[in-house]
Amino acid sequence: MKPLKLHPDRLFPAEGRTRDIARALHASVRDLPIVSPHGHTDPAWFAYDEPFANPSDLLIVPDHYVFRMLMSQGVKLEQLGIPTVDGSPTETDPRAIWHRFAAHYHLFRGTPSRLWLDWVFAEAFGIDVQLETATADHYYDLIDAALKTDAFRPRALFERYNIEVIATTEGPLDPLDHHRAIRESGWKGKVVTAYRPDPVMDPDTSGFIDKVRAFCAMAGEDSGSFAGYLRAHEKRRADFRAAGATSTDHGHPSAFTADLPAAEIEALYAKVMAGPVAPQEAELFRGHMLTEMARMSIEDGMVMQIHPAVYRSHNAAVLQRFGRDKGGDIPLPGEFVRALKPLLDRFGNDPRLTLVLFTLDEDVYSRELAPLAGHYPALRLGPPWWFHDSPEGMRRFRERATETGGFYNTVGFNDDTRAFLSIPARHDVARRMDCAFLARLVAEHRMDEDEAFEVARALSYDLVKQAYKL
Amino acid sequence: MKPLKLHPDRLFPAEGRTRDIARALHASVRDLPIVSPHGHTDPAWFAYDEPFANPSDLLIVPDHYVFRMLMSQGVKLEQLGIPTVDGSPTETDPRAIWHRFAAHYHLFRGTPSRLWLDWVFAEAFGIDVQLETATADHYYDLIDAALKTDAFRPRALFERYNIEVIATTEGPLDPLDHHRAIRESGWKGKVVTAYRPDPVMDPDTSGFIDKVRAFCAMAGEDSGSFAGYLRAHEKRRADFRAAGATSTDHGHPSAFTADLPAAEIEALYAKVMAGPVAPQEAELFRGHMLTEMARMSIEDGMVMQIHPAVYRSHNAAVLQRFGRDKGGDIPLPGEFVRALKPLLDRFGNDPRLTLVLFTLDEDVYSRELAPLAGHYPALRLGPPWWFHDSPEGMRRFRERATETGGFYNTVGFNDDTRAFLSIPARHDVARRMDCAFLARLVAEHRMDEDEAFEVARALSYDLVKQAYKL
Amino acid sequence: MKPLKLHPDRLFPAEGRTRDIARALHASVRDLPIVSPHGHTDPAWFAYDEPFANPSDLLIVPDHYVFRMLMSQGVKLEQLGIPTVDGSPTETDPRAIWHRFAAHYHLFRGTPSRLWLDWVFAEAFGIDVQLETATADHYYDLIDAALKTDAFRPRALFERYNIEVIATTEGPLDPLDHHRAIRESGWKGKVVTAYRPDPVMDPDTSGFIDKVRAFCAMAGEDSGSFAGYLRAHEKRRADFRAAGATSTDHGHPSAFTADLPAAEIEALYAKVMAGPVAPQEAELFRGHMLTEMARMSIEDGMVMQIHPAVYRSHNAAVLQRFGRDKGGDIPLPGEFVRALKPLLDRFGNDPRLTLVLFTLDEDVYSRELAPLAGHYPALRLGPPWWFHDSPEGMRRFRERATETGGFYNTVGFNDDTRAFLSIPARHDVARRMDCAFLARLVAEHRMDEDEAFEVARALSYDLVKQAYKL
Repeated sequence: MKPLKLHPDRLFPAEGRTRDIARALHASVRDLPIVSPHGHTDPAWFAYDEPFANPSDLLIVPDHYVFRMLMSQGVKLEQLGIPTVDGSPTETDPRAIWHRFAAHYHLFRGTPSRLWLDWVFAEAFGIDVQLETATADHYYDLIDAALKTDAFRPRALFERYNIEVIATTEGPLDPLDHHRAIRESGWKGKVVTAYRPDPVMDPDTSGFIDKVRAFCAMAGEDSGSFAGYLRAHEKRRADFRAAGATSTDHGHPSAFTADLPAAEIEALYAKVMAGPVAPQEAELFRGHMLTEMARMSIEDGMVMQIHPAVYRSHNAAVLQRFGRDKGGDIPLPGEFVRALKPLLDRFGNDPRLTLVLFTLDEDVYSRELAPLAGHYPALRLGPPWWFHDSPEGMRRFRERATETGGFYNTVGFNDDTRAFLSIPARHDVARRMDCAFLARLVAEHRMDEDEAFEVARALSYDLVKQAYKL
Repeated sequence: MKPLKLHPDRLFPAEGRTRDIARALHASVRDLPIVSPHGHTDPAWFAYDEPFANPSDLLIVPDHYVFRMLMSQGVKLEQLGIPTVDGSPTETDPRAIWHRFAAHYHLFRGTPSRLWLDWVFAEAFGIDVQLETATADHYYDLIDAALKTDAFRPRALFERYNIEVIATTEGPLDPLDHHRAIRESGWKGKVVTAYRPDPVMDPDTSGFIDKVRAFCAMAGEDSGSFAGYLRAHEKRRADFRAAGATSTDHGHPSAFTADLPAAEIEALYAKVMAGPVAPQEAELFRGHMLTEMARMSIEDGMVMQIHPAVYRSHNAAVLQRFGRDKGGDIPLPGEFVRALKPLLDRFGNDPRLTLVLFTLDEDVYSRELAPLAGHYPALRLGPPWWFHDSPEGMRRFRERATETGGFYNTVGFNDDTRAFLSIPARHDVARRMDCAFLARLVAEHRMDEDEAFEVARALSYDLVKQAYKL
Repeated sequence: MKPLKLHPDRLFPAEGRTRDIARALHASVRDLPIVSPHGHTDPAWFAYDEPFANPSDLLIVPDHYVFRMLMSQGVKLEQLGIPTVDGSPTETDPRAIWHRFAAHYHLFRGTPSRLWLDWVFAEAFGIDVQLETATADHYYDLIDAALKTDAFRPRALFERYNIEVIATTEGPLDPLDHHRAIRESGWKGKVVTAYRPDPVMDPDTSGFIDKVRAFCAMAGEDSGSFAGYLRAHEKRRADFRAAGATSTDHGHPSAFTADLPAAEIEALYAKVMAGPVAPQEAELFRGHMLTEMARMSIEDGMVMQIHPAVYRSHNAAVLQRFGRDKGGDIPLPGEFVRALKPLLDRFGNDPRLTLVLFTLDEDVYSRELAPLAGHYPALRLGPPWWFHDSPEGMRRFRERATETGGFYNTVGFNDDTRAFLSIPARHDVARRMDCAFLARLVAEHRMDEDEAFEVARALSYDLVKQAYKL
């Protein structure tokens, strides 16, 4: 058995002087509270504070980073207990799942999953040997036992993790009951929602028309008119704000926006509510609605986020058998310059709007996003997202976005995760990588050390609170 | 107050052995004269040698790098004294402008503007405290006083900066009076022009037809025939050469070229001179004219530069109120392989042609530009341009372009600036970054040290003189 | 004369601790045998073991990396003895060619050609002074004399180079006589072929119809039906397997795939065999055939490789005078997500398929390829290819592909070369760069040292043998 020990200098540059600076910077931000403005934890966890079921259900079955890599090397999703769409059986023994994971743990070498998982093992559970087949049972037993203790219930972890505030993400039809339950429970943890109206803004959503009708009905508005539909958004946004939301989120196939005349969007709305439309009409509707969302953001103060350009559920067989979000989403080239112009022409100079842009296409960091964010008052750059939420991904983001966009047009870190136990690990990686980047600037005499301390704090804490109004 | 001091090792790698090599390389090129083959300084400065007006008019109002970043964080262009198109008033107090700038100086952390400005403050003006609100008046008074002295007049700075030659850029309708005045003044500074015929080559230019007529009239040619229009170019090029020009420059929406049969281009010329044409016809005209420019370059020896693929004046409100070149230009994806083929099919193997390519799309460095320049005798790669004229931008250029394109297919540095005072700072950054790159090659035993000294000199001085025939 | 000496630490990071780790890792893989699963050496060399002709015919005339760079700086291909299509004379004096090369050797500074050539000079020939005009004759005489010795015959070099197995690449009409001759010679060196059917799969190939007819005739199948054409592929693949092949290779203009219904592909086949077809029909045929190749790979176990997206023979004058493969191939943007979906929908989850993807568009490493390979069981990532087979290219590949794709979805190194003498140099560069990358992970505490040793061995030896079934 090999020892498992997180090195205190992990992710810092090897060069001595630079490492010393990185260490000092990191020490100054390491213990700042976690502000998590965008993610996918389940509010029911915090509402009811039930223990997590078992190691595999907690750490493997819901983590598409983990099972996609195992699948790429021949482990079948059935063998990992991923539930099927039709309910046909898959592996039900969590210990067997855990063993398959342990036997393939070497696949994660060099990936951020390895960093996050080792942190969870070492820091959250106090394990001191590495995961491999020989230690799989030790791991399983130890984690399983810990999960049955009060210290590993969601609220206890929330407090232990020093989370100042965390945002979940809910759909427009969500009754927000769990958030209500959290508030009414008297627990002091701050858990807020975020408004993600994709299912009622994207005509390509399955069951779109029924969803829009239910959405309008929920808001007491008439789905028969575009005005009613817009008012439904305004009301639901207000409901979400009442559940703490300070932001909206939009996961569109592209960043395309439009700003149609009233008559045209009224007609287009009637068309999308009448039945299937051509792809370009669906795109036009989504694009116009982004501009409407920007208008509402100016009116109600909610920060707007766009996460565009992913080919969802690329693997047809996996989609059919296991459903969406099973590790088969693949990035597409991003385009923002022409796509955002209609929205920016209308609202780009309005200081009341904060529009946070994300991309999976790293090419646009220096070519499009930094130039746009370094000009428009309304724009900010989200942190490296999803596949790029990794040491090299973060380094590339800072190297490519800073010189044109500056630090102050970025918004700190998003963990964007449903893997609750790893949240501190993810923030830790981000803080370390930002400190490593700043340390290089200092060591190369491109920034004074006192300024680096200020920027390190801004990137870890201040900017996210400001940008997301948290 | 914090001290301001430029570190002698700034921009060098932190690792000791590599830094030692970088230092030695830099010492060997630091004092070479500045050759500035492409830029936007005003020839009137050198013709009449008037003092600069005040700190804000010199350093803030004309610098779109500076005011775009301030604007992105909520400072209005009106508050910075940017003149409006309709002459409606904006801030007129240069000291108030300076204070706004000073209060936001932290925004430039990590950007090249910070490097350039600090150099100007410390080296040009000898200031020894950092800029912040508390020192804003000190700065303003000190700079303002200096600007009233003879030592800060344009010619004195030119000489102090050890500028061997500088090129300005003039439009095809420019009478070149300032350049004539420089020559006739007896002053020994070498200031040359460059021929930038975009306004009479791009049918999308506002007032295009009138401009072409005036252009032909200026050359004593008939604008009614394509032959006359071409002769006008040939004559104006000769005029520019008489004013020292060794190069032409072309800032097109794309690198698209065409090589139309005589009858087709004659007909297209008639069409663009008759009134508005479709976008693809404008593109075709521009594309054919690039090939004509290459032909003329072969005949008259002028070096040809293409700076393509920028979405100009993206911000509609800023364009309307403040006009062009106000920080709202955003890069577009570049494409050179298909775009340049017509021109290269005709002239790509002609050793008499030097065509220098620039891009704002860093993706094409390794994919398109280095492979093209490492093959065609006529092609050379311009240095990292505009947003990429920065430490990380320069590093990426060398890392991505050198292995396929080699050092000797590049052309040294362009400062491309109207910020006259910062010219030595920009060349200093380029020389330091090139030395840092070479030092890494030496430290990793990928290049011998004596070769690195030769290459450092080539990149700083020899290649630019050869490529631009200066 | 300057000494030529390969530094034992070449390509390792300068920082001391990281270099120590890199050294140790490299020492553990340095002497592993070379497994070369994809390349373009001539099987006739190994079949007949004739001596190489002279230094220029061996090292300059066949190496497009070398003569493209010389050409880019004004040396004419005629002056380098490149044979012409029409047989018109070019330089015939190999010593004169060698002198031109020597006089321009500085052009290769910072390029991988320099690393490979210096290795050949120092290691293969034992030369201890640098190449320049003053040493050109010394080089020529020494190399020429060596080539006349038995030690420099192909089989002796093969053995001295510790090549465990090397794959050549042959076209579908190749009789594989040389491979037969190798087997029948009794020599123990393992030289296998690979099946590259482009000329009978790409309707844009000149003489396509005749080639398909000859191909079917060679296999004893009827070219008049698509079924006969498919059977011809199956039979030729079997012939190639008999000559040791474990892989196929496909060099298409794009990665586009299709999966047409039987009637449609039957009709399309009839159309392409009837005469010229539209570009989109040629693309459709190629795309469908890739899917057929995947099906056959599942049936016969051959590993499938796709090398897409190159603009072949961009330089029209060079193509006309000197023919194909003369350094004028330029990369195009790659697209894999939509392009591969038809093939992946059918076979992407089949563990019997190994499909190795290559690209010249580095942008897709992190955006498309790593996400695809980190999900689909059938996909693997080929090493950095062609222009990117270089230190910086390899570093970018690992930095961009590892975090999402992992190490174990890559397949080790391909030298992909016809420059036989440089094969160990190329593998040496790859092993050094992989060790340098791993050393950084260890030094930054992102990987344990014992794991780095395992991964170093996997990248140098194990993964290539597994992926290519060698």
